[in-house]
Amino acid sequence: MQTAELSALLARQRSGWTLEQPFYICPEVFELERRGWLADQWFVLGHASELGTPGTFIVRELLGESLILVRDEQGSVRGFYNVCRHRGSRICERDGRALSLVCPYHAWTYRLDGSLRSAAALPDTVDVTGLSLRPAMVADVGGLLLGSLSGDPGTLDVMQRTFEPGLRYHGIPSARIAARRQYPTQGNWKLVLENFIECYHCLPCHPEYTSVMKHVDLVARVAPDAAAAWEGTVDAWFRETADPHSPLGSRRFAFSAGVCDALRAPIGGGRKTQSEDGEPVAPLMGALTRFDGGVSSFRCEPFVFLGVLNDYAVMFQFLPVGPEATDVNISWLVNSTASNADIDVERMMWLWDRTTVQDKALIERNAAGVRSMAYAPGPYSTLERWPARFVQRYRQEMTARLAS
Amino acid sequence: MQTAELSALLARQRSGWTLEQPFYICPEVFELERRGWLADQWFVLGHASELGTPGTFIVRELLGESLILVRDEQGSVRGFYNVCRHRGSRICERDGRALSLVCPYHAWTYRLDGSLRSAAALPDTVDVTGLSLRPAMVADVGGLLLGSLSGDPGTLDVMQRTFEPGLRYHGIPSARIAARRQYPTQGNWKLVLENFIECYHCLPCHPEYTSVMKHVDLVARVAPDAAAAWEGTVDAWFRETADPHSPLGSRRFAFSAGVCDALRAPIGGGRKTQSEDGEPVAPLMGALTRFDGGVSSFRCEPFVFLGVLNDYAVMFQFLPVGPEATDVNISWLVNSTASNADIDVERMMWLWDRTTVQDKALIERNAAGVRSMAYAPGPYSTLERWPARFVQRYRQEMTARLAS
Amino acid sequence: MQTAELSALLARQRSGWTLEQPFYICPEVFELERRGWLADQWFVLGHASELGTPGTFIVRELLGESLILVRDEQGSVRGFYNVCRHRGSRICERDGRALSLVCPYHAWTYRLDGSLRSAAALPDTVDVTGLSLRPAMVADVGGLLLGSLSGDPGTLDVMQRTFEPGLRYHGIPSARIAARRQYPTQGNWKLVLENFIECYHCLPCHPEYTSVMKHVDLVARVAPDAAAAWEGTVDAWFRETADPHSPLGSRRFAFSAGVCDALRAPIGGGRKTQSEDGEPVAPLMGALTRFDGGVSSFRCEPFVFLGVLNDYAVMFQFLPVGPEATDVNISWLVNSTASNADIDVERMMWLWDRTTVQDKALIERNAAGVRSMAYAPGPYSTLERWPARFVQRYRQEMTARLAS
Repeated sequence: MQTAELSALLARQRSGWTLEQPFYICPEVFELERRGWLADQWFVLGHASELGTPGTFIVRELLGESLILVRDEQGSVRGFYNVCRHRGSRICERDGRALSLVCPYHAWTYRLDGSLRSAAALPDTVDVTGLSLRPAMVADVGGLLLGSLSGDPGTLDVMQRTFEPGLRYHGIPSARIAARRQYPTQGNWKLVLENFIECYHCLPCHPEYTSVMKHVDLVARVAPDAAAAWEGTVDAWFRETADPHSPLGSRRFAFSAGVCDALRAPIGGGRKTQSEDGEPVAPLMGALTRFDGGVSSFRCEPFVFLGVLNDYAVMFQFLPVGPEATDVNISWLVNSTASNADIDVERMMWLWDRTTVQDKALIERNAAGVRSMAYAPGPYSTLERWPARFVQRYRQEMTARLAS
Repeated sequence: MQTAELSALLARQRSGWTLEQPFYICPEVFELERRGWLADQWFVLGHASELGTPGTFIVRELLGESLILVRDEQGSVRGFYNVCRHRGSRICERDGRALSLVCPYHAWTYRLDGSLRSAAALPDTVDVTGLSLRPAMVADVGGLLLGSLSGDPGTLDVMQRTFEPGLRYHGIPSARIAARRQYPTQGNWKLVLENFIECYHCLPCHPEYTSVMKHVDLVARVAPDAAAAWEGTVDAWFRETADPHSPLGSRRFAFSAGVCDALRAPIGGGRKTQSEDGEPVAPLMGALTRFDGGVSSFRCEPFVFLGVLNDYAVMFQFLPVGPEATDVNISWLVNSTASNADIDVERMMWLWDRTTVQDKALIERNAAGVRSMAYAPGPYSTLERWPARFVQRYRQEMTARLAS
Repeated sequence: MQTAELSALLARQRSGWTLEQPFYICPEVFELERRGWLADQWFVLGHASELGTPGTFIVRELLGESLILVRDEQGSVRGFYNVCRHRGSRICERDGRALSLVCPYHAWTYRLDGSLRSAAALPDTVDVTGLSLRPAMVADVGGLLLGSLSGDPGTLDVMQRTFEPGLRYHGIPSARIAARRQYPTQGNWKLVLENFIECYHCLPCHPEYTSVMKHVDLVARVAPDAAAAWEGTVDAWFRETADPHSPLGSRRFAFSAGVCDALRAPIGGGRKTQSEDGEPVAPLMGALTRFDGGVSSFRCEPFVFLGVLNDYAVMFQFLPVGPEATDVNISWLVNSTASNADIDVERMMWLWDRTTVQDKALIERNAAGVRSMAYAPGPYSTLERWPARFVQRYRQEMTARLAS
């Protein structure tokens, strides 16, 4: 698969239908994406609380690259490729804390700004200033540690402007991680995303989610009366119950939302949070003074998603690792001043853990089917506008990139 | 490896000698075979008893494809690719029974004839009739469930005519499976077949088979006197002992047999069946009224082989799964009216289980050697006429296919 | 990667810097090496004591090929590719002893000189003399069993002349193997070699080796005073302590040594051997009559290394098995007349077992880093003259080979 072939393939895809097989399984397509379009995207790599005092560092994988994220002496977050400039050894194997980064092979030592502090027996002819650690693009946006291989800083600015007031209001920058779980999924990242951004499958596949979220009837079947009733419920919630001080204001969760947006909606049914019985599982977060039963969604397609309840937040990570492998990680965030005794981790994880285990199975079955030579693109339903829009955007951006 | 290269390679192969290395290890050759010559072959996928009442379905792999075989409402066997026409999910994960086939992802529902019965929220512009499950070629030939990706129905007709009377006489359509075992073999399917269709290796490698089958001396070494003696034994058996009503008549198992044939021979040595002591292991099958100690072979090279004793049958499956991987499965069939108490499964499995475990090891050693750059084609002996013929036929058919 | 591309890539490498990424990870580069430059190298395959009386054979892997090394009826060592000339089966699965080599598939039987002794039912038209086992290049050099796929016999002659007197003096031809251990390492063979032939990393990484070998300060950091002091120590050792009868004479271990050489140096610190406390772990070997605390190194870059202490020897094997996989094996040799009670195997293995486990981890971290797209060649320090020289030589020889 060369770029010319890929361009022709992109051109013949049909709007409103799923993509042809190569986009979901072909290693060459994935490799072109990985070095191009995917490299330009921003990904959630962690939470600010993982980088404490200066010198604290974490090691994370992004698109096959090992990155070091470190809090420097000025308190800023810096990123470096985890590769020694001497003979290329990995420098850090696991998270840690150190005043300098020392390669375990020949003890080359780097400052927290990446510059080479010392290396024994270097020939005089070698210019040390050219031997700093190669920087990686990372940023702290309201507590979300974001990273990219070649992303546009403009996108970062948009996220900053769109997310930051709401994230601060909800206490995300100062939150702590109460739980984290990994869901390695054997499927192309597009199958993972298409699954995540539609709820057409919620009714048949996610009994827990369906029981908690009152809007599922709306998004999981064509039910005009239910939709109208739900819209009334949302109107009433914004008018009567919703926290009036939220920086998200009346920006309402809807299919017409932009690809980068911060939105609100009620859980519904009188629930205070996303728990089985609707009762809180942790203390209020941020500036909230009472439970309003809302969900605030911070989304920047394709890869940044944070769901914020009144008492906890769910931080999603979608990390492509191969043509048919994607790491899905979830971190549950809580008020950092809450004691463990005040947090019911099991009840907190219940909804999204079960739902994501179900999604992993759905995606892997989808991936298995797409591998067949009998697979052909199928039509998105009217309840899959988001994946249809995402696929459209992917095609346009890939096409533009290959043409340039 | 392009088709032109493969044509040149085919042209320089030497008759009566084994093939060059690429035919046994090269992924590109396997891929060309899989989409071409192999796709045209018919394979044993199961036995009719696995599909009971209408709605019963089984899920089977063929050449990397997952197929659903289902008994429809009219009692016929139908085959479908296990791929939803919506977003491509696998529909069935395991064997089961249902009045319709429901995709577990978004609940698209198909009738047993493959047509789409229901799908929520489909855009009006979508033509539902174009969204039936893609049919796969399957057939029930005298109880053998056969399948192919692009096979010639004419071959199926030949098998039907050649096999059906004999299979029915021996009770195969109404048999049941008493045991099944899998022998995944790390070797190209040609090495598996070449092993199966010659007995030059029986004497050094298969002590059990050699002890049971009296003809091994004939086919495993050049022994003119033994051969003549054996021919006399076979003559006497056909004259004096063989069931005279068999639809196979006097069609005698021999190297001159056609590639698709139904043949008979005695086990020899007074044995009633292929058991260690020669005594029965199950009740008589089909229309037989007494033990005649015969073996009826239903063979359609390259992939269909059924050996029928008086009291049980051995159904072989050879399923190519990769350039150096072949699944070999054996099912042991018995009279469906026999109770478990009447069947000695262990004694029944003894011969072919041991022999196939031995063959798996032989083939895997063969595959390991063929991977060497020191491997070069070697001469078939006069006792390997069948593999020599098979390889010749493979070359001719592949050559003709590439030329067209 | 075609040869033209590889030539261009070789041409742009920078002297004194590590190689670019493809040389360490690219499967095509490895495949070109394996069939070319690597095939020409000589490798240690075992020790002469592994081939006892005539008919004794061992089965060893070299560059993906399975080789049989056998002691023939005249007592010479012969090598054959482990591939039957009939249908290509592996003939020997494990070490053994037999008066002829019999293929386990169809019982084709070969004499110890590789000629075909018997094969049943061969067509008369087949010329048996063309069906001998394909010979492989093997040789016994002073007890070292060496092998190559297409090596230059001239190199073997150089090793014979350079090594043989010293090896015989130290009793290597008649030694026996007291212990052997394997260290499969996930890294390209060049990363393994670069690690083995420099000691820049000894100080930070090998506490045991550093504590035993007094020269480490010299080779692991720039310490002019220490270097001068060490040179004085070595002078004194050669003058006062070293065994004066050694055929290695005053050939001193130094960075200026040739790629194929036999050299001596003291361990230092009054140690008699490479053990934790410096005391012997086994009886004296060969013609030695007292402990002189020396290390004799028999080295023929890139792949032949033997370290000989007074009481034991350490035989290294570096066997490339894939673009990112190398088998490292160590055999510990002792005086064959020593009883097990006289040998302290654990203390004998202590130094090189620990050091090699450490090196495996270092190399695997190096390999992980080199996989990154952020990896770029770095400068060798003044203490890495040997890897720099090796890489230079590799480039020259590869370039010459591709040009021819």
